[in-house]
Amino acid sequence: MSNRQFRLGLCQLMSRTDKEENMQRAEAMVREAAAGGASVVVLPEVFQCPFGHEYFEPYAEPRGGESMRRMAQWANELGIVLVGGSLTEQDGDKLYNTCYVFDRDGSLLADYRKIHMFDVDIPGKVSFRESDSFASGEDICVFDTDVGRMGVAICYDLRFPELMRAMARRGAEVILLPAKFTTPTGEAHWDLLTRARALDNELFFAAVCAARDPKGQCYGHSLVAGPYGDIKASCDEGEAVLLCDIDLSEVDRVREQIPAFRTLRDDLYPVAD
Amino acid sequence: MSNRQFRLGLCQLMSRTDKEENMQRAEAMVREAAAGGASVVVLPEVFQCPFGHEYFEPYAEPRGGESMRRMAQWANELGIVLVGGSLTEQDGDKLYNTCYVFDRDGSLLADYRKIHMFDVDIPGKVSFRESDSFASGEDICVFDTDVGRMGVAICYDLRFPELMRAMARRGAEVILLPAKFTTPTGEAHWDLLTRARALDNELFFAAVCAARDPKGQCYGHSLVAGPYGDIKASCDEGEAVLLCDIDLSEVDRVREQIPAFRTLRDDLYPVAD
Repeated sequence: MSNRQFRLGLCQLMSRTDKEENMQRAEAMVREAAAGGASVVVLPEVFQCPFGHEYFEPYAEPRGGESMRRMAQWANELGIVLVGGSLTEQDGDKLYNTCYVFDRDGSLLADYRKIHMFDVDIPGKVSFRESDSFASGEDICVFDTDVGRMGVAICYDLRFPELMRAMARRGAEVILLPAKFTTPTGEAHWDLLTRARALDNELFFAAVCAARDPKGQCYGHSLVAGPYGDIKASCDEGEAVLLCDIDLSEVDRVREQIPAFRTLRDDLYPVAD
Repeated sequence: MSNRQFRLGLCQLMSRTDKEENMQRAEAMVREAAAGGASVVVLPEVFQCPFGHEYFEPYAEPRGGESMRRMAQWANELGIVLVGGSLTEQDGDKLYNTCYVFDRDGSLLADYRKIHMFDVDIPGKVSFRESDSFASGEDICVFDTDVGRMGVAICYDLRFPELMRAMARRGAEVILLPAKFTTPTGEAHWDLLTRARALDNELFFAAVCAARDPKGQCYGHSLVAGPYGDIKASCDEGEAVLLCDIDLSEVDRVREQIPAFRTLRDDLYPVAD
């Protein structure tokens, strides 16, 4: 395959309460994706624990901690780009919801601290204040791989089109979104938002949600949407390794056919970049 | 009903080749919507003729022409806000794809010249260069009615989220989109984009497409999407008057539950306003 084509692997892991068990399960799924030919592999958000305030601090590690070292080693051994979902990053007295991206030699290629906090209150459905535990990131993340430029965002960031626009305008042709979308909001919005982000920016959008857990917290349904807003690959709510072949020439083709992305009127409205 | 509640009427008219027949049919559908209790009524894009270069100039009228006068009279007689789809507006040697909005007394409340030209080439599906006939508008349109602030955009504008964001940030709680979306792009993108625009801005988005014509050019499927991205009312491809009750308190409620619209990080990315 040319360097505009590659196979993406999405690891729809279920987060259990045991950190080491989650790491071993993540490793097994990353190995399965690589064995299936995936050259870029993505894990879900905060995959080392359930998404609950009581877990974040006990499970946190500083930058350069053991979990980062292990993930770097997986990337290096398997020769993959590993988008490490997110870890709870301890930095002084603050916690961040942080995605580390490792290159094929195990070096740190990029890191992204989740910008938008999931502070939501839908009575009878979902109530959570992520900002009670985490501080917000302040930087948009785009990085270059040997198969193209990519961007990363995390879960609730999906609701902010300007963030995705900024990554696309900085040249990202694939956006990767580790997530723990909730079941009620996932049923209402997951496919809609992922497909719309892909179509508005005419790029590939891969959203990797944690698998449904016994409490039904996470939605699963990881998917890859293409530049025309179509679903290229998807799965249901259970644990799964989802593989999807990406051909970035489709980005060029769709942008020529419907040149919306290339004809934004930034003289009439500001466009993120 | 309080002035935060009203009934919207969408007139999914089929454009025939006879201008006067289209005007009479439009009048009949506007009257039907008003008789059904609609207080704000919307017509489709360029409803006086099929969407083809050969029609635009012969069917065009200058601002203040006969068609405008007739539509103002309908609004006044029926006591409705009439969002008059669009007409082909002749201004010197230029044509614009223009929406006129009439208040309940028949006065001109707002006008909007379509900004984004439908210059699309999807081999085997759709090929059209709107800019061969029309010049682009240069102004974003938001207006106040006695039932709330609204914005208007036309058809292909749907693909530009920053335009919708600008209207929402200027206070529009309802966006009205007269359209002649094509059948192939409608099947792929109509529901997706209308629902996503509604959800991203947490407002009501009413998209009024012309009915399917004998050549199958127009998609029909007019709909109203609510602030949660749900479909409030919709129809199939045939001619129809679609009525939908709007309660703007839902805008406030959704924006409180999922405060994405109110927590945009415009310190990190520019946001249209």
